[in-house]
Amino acid sequence: MSIQETIKQMAVAAKKASRNMANLSTVAKNNALLKMAEALLAQKPYIQQENEKDLVAGRTKGLSSAMLDRLALTDKVIDSMVGGLREVAALPDPVGEIDEMAKRPSGITVGRMRIPLGVIGMIYESRPNVTVDAAALCLKAGNAIILRGGSEAIHSNLALAKVLQESLAAEQIEAAAVQVIPVTDREAVTAMLALDDQIDLIIPRGGEGLIRFVAENSRIPVLKHYKGVCHVFVDGSADLEMAVNIVMNGKVQRPGVCNALECLLVHKDIAAAFLPKVWSALKGAGVELRGCPQSKAILPEITAALPTDFGMEFLELILAVRVVDDLDAAMAHIIQYGSQHTEVIVTNSYGNGQRFLREVDASAVMINASTRFTDGGQFGLGAEIGISTTKLHAYGPMGLKELTTRKFIVYGEGQVRA
Amino acid sequence: MSIQETIKQMAVAAKKASRNMANLSTVAKNNALLKMAEALLAQKPYIQQENEKDLVAGRTKGLSSAMLDRLALTDKVIDSMVGGLREVAALPDPVGEIDEMAKRPSGITVGRMRIPLGVIGMIYESRPNVTVDAAALCLKAGNAIILRGGSEAIHSNLALAKVLQESLAAEQIEAAAVQVIPVTDREAVTAMLALDDQIDLIIPRGGEGLIRFVAENSRIPVLKHYKGVCHVFVDGSADLEMAVNIVMNGKVQRPGVCNALECLLVHKDIAAAFLPKVWSALKGAGVELRGCPQSKAILPEITAALPTDFGMEFLELILAVRVVDDLDAAMAHIIQYGSQHTEVIVTNSYGNGQRFLREVDASAVMINASTRFTDGGQFGLGAEIGISTTKLHAYGPMGLKELTTRKFIVYGEGQVRA
Repeated sequence: MSIQETIKQMAVAAKKASRNMANLSTVAKNNALLKMAEALLAQKPYIQQENEKDLVAGRTKGLSSAMLDRLALTDKVIDSMVGGLREVAALPDPVGEIDEMAKRPSGITVGRMRIPLGVIGMIYESRPNVTVDAAALCLKAGNAIILRGGSEAIHSNLALAKVLQESLAAEQIEAAAVQVIPVTDREAVTAMLALDDQIDLIIPRGGEGLIRFVAENSRIPVLKHYKGVCHVFVDGSADLEMAVNIVMNGKVQRPGVCNALECLLVHKDIAAAFLPKVWSALKGAGVELRGCPQSKAILPEITAALPTDFGMEFLELILAVRVVDDLDAAMAHIIQYGSQHTEVIVTNSYGNGQRFLREVDASAVMINASTRFTDGGQFGLGAEIGISTTKLHAYGPMGLKELTTRKFIVYGEGQVRA
Repeated sequence: MSIQETIKQMAVAAKKASRNMANLSTVAKNNALLKMAEALLAQKPYIQQENEKDLVAGRTKGLSSAMLDRLALTDKVIDSMVGGLREVAALPDPVGEIDEMAKRPSGITVGRMRIPLGVIGMIYESRPNVTVDAAALCLKAGNAIILRGGSEAIHSNLALAKVLQESLAAEQIEAAAVQVIPVTDREAVTAMLALDDQIDLIIPRGGEGLIRFVAENSRIPVLKHYKGVCHVFVDGSADLEMAVNIVMNGKVQRPGVCNALECLLVHKDIAAAFLPKVWSALKGAGVELRGCPQSKAILPEITAALPTDFGMEFLELILAVRVVDDLDAAMAHIIQYGSQHTEVIVTNSYGNGQRFLREVDASAVMINASTRFTDGGQFGLGAEIGISTTKLHAYGPMGLKELTTRKFIVYGEGQVRA
């Protein structure tokens, strides 16, 4: 059977499973999730033995130690997947929720009922824990999921899927509800992206190259973010100590993630006072600062920024810095270089804060808080399946609700249209 | 300048305009809409003179009288556009609406603010009133719109756009907020569909061929419905007189629209009692009934249905009919042949009604009401820009809110992530 046929068969089975899943009781879904948690613990030796195959292959291939770290299903990683499953079981079930019921002038009563999307296709790299986290969220939202992970994690992903599927069977849920594609070449991705009759939504997670490939080749709607180029603008009225804390947290706490800070904008009125303060803290944490000419005039020892440093997602201990004339100049910089992920103003001006909140076009806009808060858990969504920086369907962190949609329901007593 | 360059320039101007439109006050938008209404009335002679050019060309080309009817900007049609503009001005402004504000354990306050999508691309056929109706809704939701109508209405569309743009200028809104593409060949559509950096959403309205072409060639998200194959299932416990009314209204009131009834499913227990009643009413209205063998056994004079009659969008006075064993058989038929538009059960069984509402996958599911109610106005959305039968972003009739999205907003007092 060709790759195309294999994947088509999997997608047809997923579609069929999804029809039954839409009507599963909350109890059945939660039981399956808790059963999965138990099964991961019980089958830890098997999972780790399969994971070891990936690790051996990875070492032979010469993967970096960071990549091997991300690949390893240590006891701690498995515990965290188990915790994730239990947390998702504890979340409220969005499916079946009814709201906006209202009687219309015609006499009919119209409302909206939340329903699953159907089949979700997940395309991701390295980290095998995505297999479990994504499957849990999709199951809770009543969707089937088809997972296509990276080649370096294939044994781990297939082992995890096997354990999850056994737990589904125990609750009479079809195994096709959670499937890992056993083929890891790019042809498998292309085949998946053509199945718009079976798959309702594609969520890619990984590097910009993978995401662009998916977006450009998909006939299925894609929820994605390419990169997180997050800014902090320190306004003229900012509390400078607060601003230092927010900058440090954004840049240093976890520089490799998409909500890390990449560029600092400083109001010219406070640049001479603020830049030495923040530079002293950043330097202490090993951060390289790349500044515009005005910043360099204040801090001669920092690197001169190249034009490409603005709009750059460094993902390491490097920060671009630019002195701007005012709020409008800061917002113009953000329009030009931002990635619609997270934008922050530090200010004590009510008016400037409100203008920034209203006018900046990003999935998360903040006053006086760290960029690092952009996260499904921190925002109260419970858990996160990804972040969208495009506006259709979802914008920002996506939780269970973003894996559903709403249909209209109508109660009548025989009304017809006049 | 090539077609591609022309359209790219228009889209770049639209994107620029959309940034300012996102921050327009409700008053400014409403004033522009009311000004447009006045201008349509004041410039009626000019509009009708341009429309006459299209009508002359249409008659020469041999367009059907139905098509010429749809093309004509009679006084009545212009009055209806004027009324539409005033209605949209009276609708609440969705932009800036904030909800779900909540304090999180970290101390930050997180909520969601409704914002425009940006630039909408509308691709449509014949009816020039779409130019005005769609522009009004997009403007009210703070979006710029690029309209690409059919060649047969080009003079009318350009004249309408000119009048609308003059009204924008009076309120200091950039003219690029509403643009009609002056090129009507398909190349213009293809060029538009490639501009995913400028256009945020494509809404096609027209025949299935146009919509498929758009869906298959777009790199921009598309909200669409291919067709409306709506069913009424008359359950064993139905009030037969109510069922006759609902069937008649669905099929006869306006057979050419997407929420018209195309297929009747009848529970076997009441088929012998119900079919003669409904056939007598349908026959009186000139409807051709195409029945399954069981229906034909009861009504020998009706046409025998071909397999292709099920799932067919007739859009005329033809109705398919099939006798089914029970609710499950009816729902299985709908899964196989439905188009996720509107599905109705007529029943007196509480359980069957609730199962149908919950389990049938369609954008509108109804108990004891006519399929003809699926409409933005009837559902309380105020006005409708189209109907979506796919689940991402919107499902069912789309009003002002569906032309917006929500961003996360965060109020902090210096919080950082632990």
